[in-house]
Amino acid sequence: MKTNGQIASICGPFLRKSLRLVTHRYFAMPLIALLLVNACNAKHTADENAIEAKPNLQNLTQYVNPFIGTSNFGATHPGAQYPHGMASVVPFNVAHGERQGNTFEKDASWHSRPYVHENTFLTGFSHVNLSGVGCPELGTLLLMPSAGDLVLDPAVYGSTYTDEVASPGYYSNKLTKYNIKTEVTSSLRTGISRYHFPAGNNHVLFNIGLGLTNETGGMIQRVSDTEIEGFRTIGTFCYRPEDVRPVYFVVKLNKTPDRSGVFKKMPAFKNVEADWVSYNDTYKTYENYHSPMAGDDIGAYFSFTHDAPNTVEVKVGISYVSMENARENLHAEQANFAFNDTKIKAETAWNKLLNRIKVEGSRHNKRLFYSALYHMLIHPNILQDVNGEYPKMGAHEIGNTGGKNRYTTFSLWDTSRNVHPFLSLVYPELQSDMVKSMLNMAVESGWMPKWELLSMETDVMVGDPAAAVIADTYLRGIQDFDIESAYAFLTKASDTVANNPIRKENPDYSALGYVPIDDEDTWGGSVSTSLEYYVADYSISQLAKALNKQDDAKRYYAKSLGYKHLLDTQTGMLRPKWRDGRWYSPYDPELGRNFEPAPGYVEGNAWNYRFYVPHDIPGLIEALGGSKVFLQQLQMCFDTDNYDMANEPDITYPFLFNYVAGEAWRSQQKVAELIDKYFLDTPAGLPGNDDAGTMSAWLAFSMLGLYPVSPAHMDYAIVTPQFDRIEIALSDKYYQGKSLVIKTDSRTNESQTSARPQYIQSVSFKDQTITNYFVDHHTLVTGGTLNVVLSDTPVKKQYDNRNDNEGNSYVK
Amino acid sequence: MKTNGQIASICGPFLRKSLRLVTHRYFAMPLIALLLVNACNAKHTADENAIEAKPNLQNLTQYVNPFIGTSNFGATHPGAQYPHGMASVVPFNVAHGERQGNTFEKDASWHSRPYVHENTFLTGFSHVNLSGVGCPELGTLLLMPSAGDLVLDPAVYGSTYTDEVASPGYYSNKLTKYNIKTEVTSSLRTGISRYHFPAGNNHVLFNIGLGLTNETGGMIQRVSDTEIEGFRTIGTFCYRPEDVRPVYFVVKLNKTPDRSGVFKKMPAFKNVEADWVSYNDTYKTYENYHSPMAGDDIGAYFSFTHDAPNTVEVKVGISYVSMENARENLHAEQANFAFNDTKIKAETAWNKLLNRIKVEGSRHNKRLFYSALYHMLIHPNILQDVNGEYPKMGAHEIGNTGGKNRYTTFSLWDTSRNVHPFLSLVYPELQSDMVKSMLNMAVESGWMPKWELLSMETDVMVGDPAAAVIADTYLRGIQDFDIESAYAFLTKASDTVANNPIRKENPDYSALGYVPIDDEDTWGGSVSTSLEYYVADYSISQLAKALNKQDDAKRYYAKSLGYKHLLDTQTGMLRPKWRDGRWYSPYDPELGRNFEPAPGYVEGNAWNYRFYVPHDIPGLIEALGGSKVFLQQLQMCFDTDNYDMANEPDITYPFLFNYVAGEAWRSQQKVAELIDKYFLDTPAGLPGNDDAGTMSAWLAFSMLGLYPVSPAHMDYAIVTPQFDRIEIALSDKYYQGKSLVIKTDSRTNESQTSARPQYIQSVSFKDQTITNYFVDHHTLVTGGTLNVVLSDTPVKKQYDNRNDNEGNSYVK
Repeated sequence: MKTNGQIASICGPFLRKSLRLVTHRYFAMPLIALLLVNACNAKHTADENAIEAKPNLQNLTQYVNPFIGTSNFGATHPGAQYPHGMASVVPFNVAHGERQGNTFEKDASWHSRPYVHENTFLTGFSHVNLSGVGCPELGTLLLMPSAGDLVLDPAVYGSTYTDEVASPGYYSNKLTKYNIKTEVTSSLRTGISRYHFPAGNNHVLFNIGLGLTNETGGMIQRVSDTEIEGFRTIGTFCYRPEDVRPVYFVVKLNKTPDRSGVFKKMPAFKNVEADWVSYNDTYKTYENYHSPMAGDDIGAYFSFTHDAPNTVEVKVGISYVSMENARENLHAEQANFAFNDTKIKAETAWNKLLNRIKVEGSRHNKRLFYSALYHMLIHPNILQDVNGEYPKMGAHEIGNTGGKNRYTTFSLWDTSRNVHPFLSLVYPELQSDMVKSMLNMAVESGWMPKWELLSMETDVMVGDPAAAVIADTYLRGIQDFDIESAYAFLTKASDTVANNPIRKENPDYSALGYVPIDDEDTWGGSVSTSLEYYVADYSISQLAKALNKQDDAKRYYAKSLGYKHLLDTQTGMLRPKWRDGRWYSPYDPELGRNFEPAPGYVEGNAWNYRFYVPHDIPGLIEALGGSKVFLQQLQMCFDTDNYDMANEPDITYPFLFNYVAGEAWRSQQKVAELIDKYFLDTPAGLPGNDDAGTMSAWLAFSMLGLYPVSPAHMDYAIVTPQFDRIEIALSDKYYQGKSLVIKTDSRTNESQTSARPQYIQSVSFKDQTITNYFVDHHTLVTGGTLNVVLSDTPVKKQYDNRNDNEGNSYVK
Repeated sequence: MKTNGQIASICGPFLRKSLRLVTHRYFAMPLIALLLVNACNAKHTADENAIEAKPNLQNLTQYVNPFIGTSNFGATHPGAQYPHGMASVVPFNVAHGERQGNTFEKDASWHSRPYVHENTFLTGFSHVNLSGVGCPELGTLLLMPSAGDLVLDPAVYGSTYTDEVASPGYYSNKLTKYNIKTEVTSSLRTGISRYHFPAGNNHVLFNIGLGLTNETGGMIQRVSDTEIEGFRTIGTFCYRPEDVRPVYFVVKLNKTPDRSGVFKKMPAFKNVEADWVSYNDTYKTYENYHSPMAGDDIGAYFSFTHDAPNTVEVKVGISYVSMENARENLHAEQANFAFNDTKIKAETAWNKLLNRIKVEGSRHNKRLFYSALYHMLIHPNILQDVNGEYPKMGAHEIGNTGGKNRYTTFSLWDTSRNVHPFLSLVYPELQSDMVKSMLNMAVESGWMPKWELLSMETDVMVGDPAAAVIADTYLRGIQDFDIESAYAFLTKASDTVANNPIRKENPDYSALGYVPIDDEDTWGGSVSTSLEYYVADYSISQLAKALNKQDDAKRYYAKSLGYKHLLDTQTGMLRPKWRDGRWYSPYDPELGRNFEPAPGYVEGNAWNYRFYVPHDIPGLIEALGGSKVFLQQLQMCFDTDNYDMANEPDITYPFLFNYVAGEAWRSQQKVAELIDKYFLDTPAGLPGNDDAGTMSAWLAFSMLGLYPVSPAHMDYAIVTPQFDRIEIALSDKYYQGKSLVIKTDSRTNESQTSARPQYIQSVSFKDQTITNYFVDHHTLVTGGTLNVVLSDTPVKKQYDNRNDNEGNSYVK
């Protein structure tokens, strides 16, 4: 099984097509994976204070379209979501809908979405959910209103719906089967639902059997007429059997039901017993049951008889520590039943975060941009309870943050590329808490996280992405964490040869400088893995330099150049190699385009990986034979449709034209073209899986006109900003509290739909002209205005090729 | 569904034959039931003191054959059983054995047995069990040793076995598949198992998914390396969906395993997911899992690697209140791991109880007799924990007995007939605690119990049997309970017309004096139900008389004669009648003999019920036309094979010849003949289901030569004692502490197999000749010797017919 090591992340098209190939051995195993959104809002108190200091909040939630990414395998959800919320309340419409018009059923395929826009059959609202992630997980604790007879089978009590409304922290629809209007909102660790029932018999069902997760089993205990508590086991992320833990809950109603109890799916009895039992293979009720009830498929019901239309509110508290903590969370965040207050608090929390960046431009672009920000600010999410308790990483212990924020859901193979750099720039206090969370995970478990979910190392995807995040964050100026300790964990992962859970291929990688393809059957993706290690070692080298560890800096930098072992100059490809030094052959770089197995590569083919040396593009250019050859190959990548917008390895390629003198206009053009083609203000408005916000972060950076081309490298590539004016409120604490303004000379009004000029005529920062289309992070964060003059025609001005092997900025 | 009211009890032959009839509507419903053993050992402290006062305990456990009743649907078990134990440790061999040689599989039919002697495939040792009961229940919390690879599917890890040994409180076998010798013993609320492992990989598996019960679901929580706790839902006795509660457990090992964890059966995934998961439709392990795990089919494993043969002991504590109480029970009863001590304590407890009656006679008869006593002293069993806590009846509250014993498992339709009278005579302190338990149930729930299981009123079978037990017990001289309160609950059940959960037919019964057949489709057994009510009302009348409530006594006595409404003198049968007074017609009294439906009757046909007026046999004789007619009909009942030894309604018929002057020799002959035919020192040694000890009590009374023909009637019919000498140590507290000796003039040695004289020549008590073959309870319990002179030929001496309509004793 390929469950221990590298697992390919899944994007929408990949998933779609791979279904055709499942009979193939390579794809029939769980070797796929994915990523998460990202970050923000860490210490909400501190964060709120920071925002309070800058009043005049604009209503920016109006521009967020939570439906973006709910089609085309984007895997986002339109539910009620608090920034970085542990809980969310999401319409769950991926089960039992085969005959109800559903297109995508959770059990029909590898399916990671609690909600799919094309689907029509709702079986409840799930209270723990992932956003933009590619493996089935969570999507459970399903609250559902119904009317008429008490029906406990979700296949029967599910309903179609109309009148969907979604905004940050709020979702509503109308269940057509029951004529019930539903409204849901959420806080950080709780959700609340308001059901507008017609007169008659009404029910609130809480089903903990159904779920997107492939794990099973739970327990429910009545607390009072209006309260239950319990837990539900979740896990087996990416079908890995070992990653499992309970999610605890408390459910409270604002009205005493006329009848209530628990229910359980009974097994199919055999032989004559099937006739004797009245509950054969069906749901059995346990009315007024006061003992704990456990089982694979259980739930609770609360039934009302209303003489007139009536409203019932139900709130749910969540914890990953205990039922007591779930109750404490619920009490702290929703002491009363105050749906509107909770909704307003969620909206305000979102507005405070979104207001960090104020933009002027078309409404369409604002919708794309703020929706991208929104999707970036869901994961990593809060793990600790209000009392500070959380499950420790790799141990069976409960820790206490002492008032700090502990983040979880780190899809680092994805988010290391752009989500964390974005957070470092705009929300550095959140990024600080996130790297502290990562460091605490290492202290607890001995190793930095790779794909951490709820304090479980799911070991999904390849490489050693924590190095990039830690180094990049520190180098950007966020340094209020124990960098020596963090550094020690990074070098431990890089240097430990045997029994290294992060770099399992280190016996070979350390000896050869690359991961040979020999053991690919076991670990998979030898080239992809090698390339990730080079990026990680580059990151460590840059960090070592900053920490004045010059010997380390040289050693890791040398390791980072090991990609040259794999560079086949004849094909121009980073090519799989055997342990004995022979190239893998026969070799077809196109292999993998149609999602057939591509030996050596994970989530991509040779083309997708051929320029994936972000830390040494100049070196790659030179090794390939110079700028002309490089330019030709890079352009060919797009022209032959070998660029995949939906997967991460080639995500920086559109910006690489900036490295070739006089060709930056191609990046300006390509990025604008990709935005137009793949990012829409519609459910299908992401190119594929959001990968925990990575696609959204690509869009957000691109629309600012800036992109961080390599981890631990402080240059942003400059492309055309998509707004007339952008103002980023820079942190008081980590930067100087001034604003970074990005200004173009075009004047767009909100309703404008005609194209803005897409090329850069000239660009300057604080009146200093930038000639090379790169700008250094540390320059930008001093505040000031980046002035971008646009042009309808490309500027093909010649300038010097650069030599920046040591990681220095291009912009002086 | 026939789940609310009368349900027929099941005996072996009935069950066997009914399988052929399951397609018939009447039998395809859950309208069958059964009964429990009985009583003893209530306040063990008090009891032990009482026994200590009479030293010189004989080793009587040597005569107990726990295998009796483990075949022929007897439903007893050979496991380690403490007297009245809440826990027991029983070899469970009724699952997954279809291909392993099993004859009777639990899911193949209505199956109430955790162990069947014919079966060969053992899947563990269950820790909560019923004995001699006809509905599937309990038989779960299965501990199993295994060796070699860790296998979690009981269908695979099960094993055949040899070398079975069973004695009171102890069972052992050898698992042939693993070469593991197992030994188990138990205390009141705990069990302990000792596994003799060969060298190599060994495992202790604790499976809470599998079970005889049809209820599902449980939870397990790791406490330490050597301890787990949890609960398992049990219930749905007789397929009634609503009767459900948790049984809590703690499991402790005496050695730290090398590896341990929990396991769970995963569902069958569909479509391509089935390929992606490595645990599709199979058992998944959760090694070193520290959180609670819940599900339908879960368990725990403890794995050892032994260099040499090794022994592991595992003890299990049980509670119906909480995991904490299970732990407290375990600590109180087995603070250490001391298998041999626990075994000796169980044996001693049994010997103390068995020594109440010392007999002289053949070893064969001793084996039958002490095995019958043994089977009578299992149910009703203790419900309260060592701290006195127990689940209250009909409420969701925990009560505390304050140091007293709370009994449960009252199969009163059965046990009211002879088990409780037997206990009243020989173990009155236990019977006292049992009626106090019944009274407390009434205080807690508002109604006396009918078929109480673990504080759940399962409402199985017909009638109002608590009246018989309460009145009979009080009238026998056990009066240290609140009789006025008990009387009020009895009259409430008799007199409440509407919404009466005990006597649901009271609207008709009160108005007509009988239950008409009109609603039989709903309730079933109109004649049977009526007859039970007459017995109950007779019991109340006798109690009223004793309490000096003369008006009540007359009124209830009049009600008890209502059987005459149903007596069809033309057929001589107690015949179903319509509400309007017409006889049910066409009418075939033979109907039901072959287990086809017999309208009007439950667990029997018209013949089986035709003399079922135990409280007014003289009246019946008169109504039928006199002794000659009665004698002819009674004899015909046997001659035409219409007597069913395995079911309760006709259980007194063999003694009814005593009512006809000069014909008592027929009872002497018939009882001896039935003993010989149906009661054997072999697994098939019961005529059918033991019915919670009722068959055993029939045998025990019969072998003493005494039988209580009617509840609340103090006469014992005298038949031939099966021993040369019997000495019953009568209670100090309830009687006068003297011995009752029953002596015959024959001299038998233990190994004798030749027949003793089977007829009574003459009988006297304290030198006073008894001419009518009845002796009064109150006469006997003064102590003294009942001298029975035997003869090889029947004595057909003529004596006067009696007239005893007022319930007076025949013996003055």
